[in-house]
Parts: sequence; structure tokens; C-alpha cells
Amino acid sequence: MISRGRPQVVVVGAGFGGLRVAKQLRGTGVDVLVLDRHNFHTFQPLLYEVATAGLRPDDIAQPVRTILRGAPNIRFRMGAVRAVDLTRRRVVLDSGAEIGYDYLVVAAGSATNFFGLESVEARALGMKDIQQATALRNRVLRSFERAATPGGAEERARLMTTVVVGGGPTGVELAGALAELKRHVLPHDYPDLNFDEARVVLLEATDRLLAALPRRLQRKAAEQLRSLGVEVRFGAAVRDLTDDGVELASGERIAAENVAWVAGVRGEPLGEAMGVTLGAGRCVPVGPTLQIPGHPEAYVIGDLALLERPGGGAYPMVAPVAMQQGSLAADNILRSIGGGPAKTFRYHDRGTMATIGRRMAVAHVFGLDFTGIVAWMLWLTVHLIQLVGFRNRTLVLVNWAWNYARYDRANRLVTDQGGGRPAGGVPAHPDARGDGVGQDASAP
Amino acid sequence: MISRGRPQVVVVGAGFGGLRVAKQLRGTGVDVLVLDRHNFHTFQPLLYEVATAGLRPDDIAQPVRTILRGAPNIRFRMGAVRAVDLTRRRVVLDSGAEIGYDYLVVAAGSATNFFGLESVEARALGMKDIQQATALRNRVLRSFERAATPGGAEERARLMTTVVVGGGPTGVELAGALAELKRHVLPHDYPDLNFDEARVVLLEATDRLLAALPRRLQRKAAEQLRSLGVEVRFGAAVRDLTDDGVELASGERIAAENVAWVAGVRGEPLGEAMGVTLGAGRCVPVGPTLQIPGHPEAYVIGDLALLERPGGGAYPMVAPVAMQQGSLAADNILRSIGGGPAKTFRYHDRGTMATIGRRMAVAHVFGLDFTGIVAWMLWLTVHLIQLVGFRNRTLVLVNWAWNYARYDRANRLVTDQGGGRPAGGVPAHPDARGDGVGQDASAP
Repeated sequence: MISRGRPQVVVVGAGFGGLRVAKQLRGTGVDVLVLDRHNFHTFQPLLYEVATAGLRPDDIAQPVRTILRGAPNIRFRMGAVRAVDLTRRRVVLDSGAEIGYDYLVVAAGSATNFFGLESVEARALGMKDIQQATALRNRVLRSFERAATPGGAEERARLMTTVVVGGGPTGVELAGALAELKRHVLPHDYPDLNFDEARVVLLEATDRLLAALPRRLQRKAAEQLRSLGVEVRFGAAVRDLTDDGVELASGERIAAENVAWVAGVRGEPLGEAMGVTLGAGRCVPVGPTLQIPGHPEAYVIGDLALLERPGGGAYPMVAPVAMQQGSLAADNILRSIGGGPAKTFRYHDRGTMATIGRRMAVAHVFGLDFTGIVAWMLWLTVHLIQLVGFRNRTLVLVNWAWNYARYDRANRLVTDQGGGRPAGGVPAHPDARGDGVGQDASAP
Repeated sequence: MISRGRPQVVVVGAGFGGLRVAKQLRGTGVDVLVLDRHNFHTFQPLLYEVATAGLRPDDIAQPVRTILRGAPNIRFRMGAVRAVDLTRRRVVLDSGAEIGYDYLVVAAGSATNFFGLESVEARALGMKDIQQATALRNRVLRSFERAATPGGAEERARLMTTVVVGGGPTGVELAGALAELKRHVLPHDYPDLNFDEARVVLLEATDRLLAALPRRLQRKAAEQLRSLGVEVRFGAAVRDLTDDGVELASGERIAAENVAWVAGVRGEPLGEAMGVTLGAGRCVPVGPTLQIPGHPEAYVIGDLALLERPGGGAYPMVAPVAMQQGSLAADNILRSIGGGPAKTFRYHDRGTMATIGRRMAVAHVFGLDFTGIVAWMLWLTVHLIQLVGFRNRTLVLVNWAWNYARYDRANRLVTDQGGGRPAGGVPAHPDARGDGVGQDASAP
């Protein structure tokens, strides 16, 4: 892999950012190797649909080799990256294999932030990848199966209660979809259960949902969620998770079998194996050209990159930022090879949107606010266009159209083996905050 | 669950047989409870398509509650049955819960028969359920990923070799689909690999494939498989599996990373927890009315039932037998309630078919032989009609049409976590036979 004439570019991660780098370098004078622990790309903004049986896991995944087909200068290798040796310019895989590079782009993404709460990490369900989303689907459906077996009323209500922690886009979309599942789908499956006992609770530590949106849309989102039956709770910081449910900082307890934790994200642990000092959120500080200080041949983009925004604050951890940074990193590599100066990052924020349910959404696009069915159509259009690959788009459309016509979430399979929740952890400190800011906002 | 006026019928298993019982009892004067360890029904004849990335796991599964919706006298409960107490008329679940019944139908199906070969059980991949089919897909695709990393030529060829043991319908269909994957799909994904090194080997202990078909079709099937590049080996009994591959009774070794074992099936282990003496293939002997001798209220149907065929031999373990026995068991229960005599089972054999590849199949239907594209169209039509539920049928059709137009097997996701093969077992006795008879034949 060491240079054989053509510069070797290694891209770590086949998410939105990494794929953009590869596509931008297609047909140029460099050789590109994309590495990812999975052999598929995941369309993360629709993970909540998998978690609520609206889409199949495979609907939102596409093999990386399919995406990169027909580009002779781009190759893919499936493998988890264990460390990066910036000095020797080598990437170390889990297998122990080392891969040299002339240029490096680390686009490894983010992981769930449990804010040091071990009891949460041990008990809550994340929403960062297909396995976690499928696990949430399995857990929720299995709980209703258990609720349908003979038992006490209190335990039955607890089994039918799902708590979503974090009022960012993922939390809002997940809570809305869970409410639809509860209202329109599951009552047909469980005619003997009383669905007035079933609860969907959305906990948010601050006083607003969807922090990136204008105040009016924040209020509208809460209103729409409540119209679907979601209990939206503000100022509700989580202190602890127990076997019975959630304990709030106020001391209040909410009995719930399943807790989805979408209260925040942090840089992927790979950042800790790069020999650099990490910044806020365990992210890797980069300069305005996306290069690691002292290592001009190494770029970090997307969720893992920590870049000060002009005027203060960090860029949100969303797909559009990752993709725009991917474009810039690819351009800067080509400029560096050509002997030109690197350009600095400038974010074109086209807006933010979140869907709430059938024909309900909020969108702030090109400076305009949209709600209701218009926002929902916008959301649907943008996401269908963005889904990678025609084939997935067709099937996703068929699946959605079917759900829409039937008011159904048809993918209600429990595909794991066992039922038990993970073993409990120890109680942990009480300052968890469900701010949800930047939790993979869906943006056009 | 004990009788409250209406007779209580418990059905164990939501496969083809169990569902037929439930549907036949819909709207009658009995209450029916269907039990299954999964909350979904699996369309087993298409498992090989999942194993070869032609269909998604969810394409061939449908929630049982969806299938049974709208039948007020039929309920479903998700749970694995641990034992049956025929004397006390109770079914015992894994959870310890007991369910009483007035009538019982056990339709628990079959498991892979490893013929006592522990090394095979530890190393081979089965094809009995969605998890096993997905595991095979993951293993085969991961092996090609490993083959694409730098290494020796010999190991690369081994990684690209898949052995299928058993020349019944599943073995034939799996080998054909693997050959198509190797010829038409994977070369696009791995332009650096030499696919002349990749092998698909079908081992059959006897001198013929598809024992249930006429000799002419058996020969045609072998010919079609060979035209796709499958190495069809007759008289090839497996003695042992090792970390390197397969060892034949002749002493010959075939270096292969992945071995699919479809050489035979046996009754589900539940049969051993029913307090009866089991017969051939660990199946439960029943009388011609499908009742367990001495327990006229308890029926066994499908793969788990052992019923002597008029003229000798047992019925094949195929879906049509299970469904026709399901109909009869339901009728006999209603007759018993009405005070009438039980009817005896008579099998209407409408034929057998197996697909080999795109536009290649063999079919023996209504006494007529078909090959090539006509047989393939027959096979496709029959299987699409049989797939449970309109929605699955539509999506499967879209998926197949897409594959057909693109010569693609698009569902090439590796969805498990780890790479390693299971830990090795001990060498075992050498009389395994790959006869494949009755291994879930696809029949109209």
C-alpha cells in the first residue's frame, strides 16, 4: 500500500463523510482505499424507522462495494481500525495488519454519549447502528408479547411503556413512530390488551425540543407529538436507570421496560487511539482546513472532527456537515498534491427537519418554516432522494406506500434469541442531561 | 386456559402445518391457541435465497399475529415449548408456565440431522431457519472479504470455496444460487480476485440428486448445475469436517472455508420431551388418523410425525404433507367434538420441483416432467402464490425482478459481528451419508 507512484489515500469509515471523499476522488490521480468495519453503508437518519418496524434493516443499508462499483482507482476493505499511527503514517487494523498511506481521512463518526452513567450504558438501548435499532424493535415487540401473557396489571403497564431520552431529531422521530405503532398497529395484534395502559414518554432535560429549530417549530413539534399521545416532559433530567425503569433528577420514577437513549453523541473511540489530545465530546481537534495540527497529510471530518465555528460553538454532528467536509478534504488533498494551498471549511446550512408521524413534520429550510403535511412531504422527498442507490429507494417507497395505505408497520419480527435485559450496572452520577443537540439531525 | 365451555385447542408451531390447523379452525366452535418460539412464520422453501443474498431475511417471514388477524377464536402466544405432559394434558413453556388443553396438535417441525457427527455439528452451517440462512450469507461474504486481503494463493482459494453437503432440493437450489453469486455478482465486487479459483462443490453420497424425481430430471438437474460451474460429486460421503475443509470417506480432502450441511433432517428435539417412544429420525409415531396411540386428543403432524405410508416407507418431510395433515387434524378434532369417527390420512402428491438458477429448474407435476425455463416459470409461480400475505409477495416480486434485470444478488450485507468459525468439535464416526432425501423439498 505504500506509494507506487500514485499517492495512496486511506479513508476510514464508509458513512456519509467517507463515501463523499471517495466519490470526489473517483477518476483522479490518486488511489483510494476505503475501510469500514461493516461491508455496508447505513442511512442513519432512518434508523428510527427500523426501530419501529416501519422499514426493514436491509432497506437502509447498501453494500459499500455496490456503491463504489466502476471506479478503478477506489478500493474497499472490510475491517475495523484499531489505531492510527500519525508519525509512521500507518493505519492498524483489528487483525493486526498495517496499511500505509500518503494521505489519510478519518471519518469514523460518533458513538452514543452516556455521560458517564454506567447504569444507563448497561440498561438503555442506543440508536447508532442497525444492530441497535433492530435490538430496540425486538425488545419493544417482545415486551408486548410478554404483556399479553397472564400477569399483574402493574407489570403489564410497565412492559407496555417505552421511554425515549433526548428531544433532538432522533428522539422526536422515534417517539412519534412509537406512538403510531402503539395507536394504529399493535392494537390489531393484541386485541386483549388495553392500550390506554401503554405509554410513550419523551424526556428532555431542557425546556425545548429540536434545539436547532426556530422556537415556533419547537412548540409545534411538541404539540404534534402530544396529539399522537406522546407524553412530552421538559426539565426532565435522568439520574439513573434501574430494572424497573427511569429515575429522574427530581426523584420521580417512571416504570418502563424499555428506555431508548438518544440524549447525545460523542466521538468514536478510535479518536482515543490516534495519539492526539482530544477536545470536547472526545472529538479530534482540527484546523479550519480539516487537517490535524502538525500532520497536514491527515484529515478528520464529520462527527469525529472538532472544528471551532466562526462566531463560536461547534458544528452540529449531522450528515450535511460530514458530506461538505468530505468534499473539502478530498479537494484539499488534490490541492496539496498539486502544490496549492488548502481551503478552509465553510458550512452551507440548508436547514433542518424532523418528521413526527404520518403527515406531520417540522422543517426549517432556506430560512422558511414549514409544518404539517407540507413539511412531511418535504421530509419524505429529501430522504428518498438522499437514500443511496435506486434499488433501495424503490423498495423503501413500496414499503412506505404500503404502510401509508394500511396504517401499518409491517416489519414486526422479533429476530433475536433471548428476552432478558442486559445485566444491571452500578448507580452513577446524577448530572445526565437530555439536551439532544445535534443528535444526527436530518437536514436536506 | 382450561375448558370454559368451548373446547381449547393448543397448536405447537406456526409453520406450514400449524398455521393450516389454525386457519381450518377459524370461526368454528373451538378456541385455538397457537404457540411458537418466534413471532413470525418462515417460508422455509426460500431460505436458500436468503443464504445467497437474493432475498432479504424479512422477505420470507411474516408476523404470525398478522397472518391470524381477524379471527376472534384464534390467539397467538410467543414462547418456546419445553415439554408436553400428555397425561395431565398440559404444555410446558420454557418460562415454566403451563397451558392446559382439550386437544393438542404438535407441529414443531424438524431439525438438521448431523448423524451423530460432532465435528460436523460444530463446524457446518445449517439451513433450517432465518438465523442459519443469514449466518451462511454472512460467512460466505466475509470469506470473500478475507480472500481480498493480501495473502497466499492457496488460502485464497480455500476461502473462496463453499461445499454443500446433500443433493436434495435444498442442496441443489443452494448450490445453484451460490454458483450464480460466484459467476455473475461477486466478480463486480472483487475485481482483483481470480474467480477461476472460487469453487462451489455439491457432495452427494448416493449416485443421484433429488431422489424424489424421475431419473431423467435427476440427470437434467446435475447437467444444469454443472453448466453453472458447480462441481457435482456422487458417491461422496463425508467422514469429517476439519478447520481446513471436508474429509471424504474415500480419504480425499477438499479445502473449503464454508460447508453447508443439508444432508438430512430429524424430528425437533421437543419430541424427546413428550414422554413417548420415538421412531426413525427421532420422530413421534402416530396412527393413520394422526393421533398419538393412547392419546386420542393429541395429534402430531408434519416433519415431526412418523406415519407409515400405505405400501411402506415414510411420508417426505415437505410442506404439502404438513399442510394436508394440518387440515386432517383440524377436521378430526371437529369430528371428535361432534362424536364422529376420525378419518385417516391420504396424501395427494401434486409433484416436486427444484430451481437451479435463472431460467433453470426441474419439475415433476401432475405426472409430467418439465425442465428449463418452463419449469422455472412454474416454480416461480407456485412459490409466489404460496408466499404468505400479499405484501411479502409484492416485495419479493420487486426484489426478484430487480435481480433478474440486473443479474444481481443485491442483499450482500454482512450483518453479524465476528469473523471466526465456531470452535472445533471432536472427530466422529465415519458413516455420515448425504442422501438429502426429503430435505424440505419444494412442491406445489
